[in-house]
Amino acid sequence: MAEQEELILLDVWASMYGMRVRIALAEKGISYEYKEEDLRNKSKLLLDMNPVHKKIPVLIHNGKPICESNIIVEYIDEVWNHKAPLFPSDPYDKACARFWADFIDKKLYQTGRKLYTTKGEEHEASRNEFIECLTLLQGELGDKPYFGGENFGFLDVSLIPFYSWFQAYETYGNFNFERECPKLISWAKRCIENKPSVSDTLPDSPKVLAFVQHLRKKFGIDD
Amino acid sequence: MAEQEELILLDVWASMYGMRVRIALAEKGISYEYKEEDLRNKSKLLLDMNPVHKKIPVLIHNGKPICESNIIVEYIDEVWNHKAPLFPSDPYDKACARFWADFIDKKLYQTGRKLYTTKGEEHEASRNEFIECLTLLQGELGDKPYFGGENFGFLDVSLIPFYSWFQAYETYGNFNFERECPKLISWAKRCIENKPSVSDTLPDSPKVLAFVQHLRKKFGIDD
Repeated sequence: MAEQEELILLDVWASMYGMRVRIALAEKGISYEYKEEDLRNKSKLLLDMNPVHKKIPVLIHNGKPICESNIIVEYIDEVWNHKAPLFPSDPYDKACARFWADFIDKKLYQTGRKLYTTKGEEHEASRNEFIECLTLLQGELGDKPYFGGENFGFLDVSLIPFYSWFQAYETYGNFNFERECPKLISWAKRCIENKPSVSDTLPDSPKVLAFVQHLRKKFGIDD
Repeated sequence: MAEQEELILLDVWASMYGMRVRIALAEKGISYEYKEEDLRNKSKLLLDMNPVHKKIPVLIHNGKPICESNIIVEYIDEVWNHKAPLFPSDPYDKACARFWADFIDKKLYQTGRKLYTTKGEEHEASRNEFIECLTLLQGELGDKPYFGGENFGFLDVSLIPFYSWFQAYETYGNFNFERECPKLISWAKRCIENKPSVSDTLPDSPKVLAFVQHLRKKFGIDD
């Protein structure tokens, strides 16, 4: 890699997807320029760099955009491969990490969102589905210290940002994480304790909760 | 790789996702056992091998399942890396291929499905969105012979199965592919002409159209 590189991250502080990219960059020890986006008034740069989805995060590397968080994390792992490899070398383990990261995006994120945007039966169903998702992920973790085994890896990067949203999920989902998935909570605490990339990146839970409270008012769910 | 390997593919003939896996295996020259699934009466093997999504395709390699078509294709490319590499070596080009494959799953498939499952305003909106998706993909192709450049690659594998559904999309979407995206049609014909992996895998369009007609009756859209 050349010494003089331009690396810009378009992001929003509360985004789990954005946090993935920040954690991966921190794991690799890469410095970059962070640009906070206002999603109600997206920058021209964001619209130019991600015209297809118009979403954060976008990593701009020497003028070229990379979009979609898991794809960005894979890119980071491939470009800065001198330290902290995020993928195992075995293709099967790699496929499993990709499978569960995809599961998080398709299932966990979507059902988690319903916990604070729906009411009544839909809310109840999403609560059960959310706990089921967490139970499946806990099963995948098993007795390993990290999803990546002995090492903090791609799936850890993919899931750990959700921990900063746990208080909000608990508050509006009306359940207790510690009771439902104690091993997952131990894993999250282990990540925070051992990984400055995580502890430096994750926002405080009360700040996220306040953000979600604001979202609920915006969606007309709360007064 | 050991000589004696067990490779089973759980699939449904009309599935674009399943076709991706069949094309990738054919590109690599790998033989396998094909098992057609009945989605109204899923086999115990499918439910055991993909308990999370309960969907085809599933590739079972020496007893271990790999799920989700793009993840399976990446796995195939990594395990059987002796021929027909599907990914470019440049991380940026790799990220672009992954981005557009993800776009196909998130946008093209979903809007394509609406073409034959909806009516009225929703149908009209999906028609416009579908053509917009194709136009974006055609832009990504540019003047290259394949999405992978000179070589048939991951994104080609990801998109070409949709060509067997084009007649059905045209019929129910009420538009003309050749007029809307001529370069994409040339690309598809090029794949069929030059790649036995494609021509041997893709079912005939009228057979797919009949399948979609059957689906519409099942969904109560047609009598």
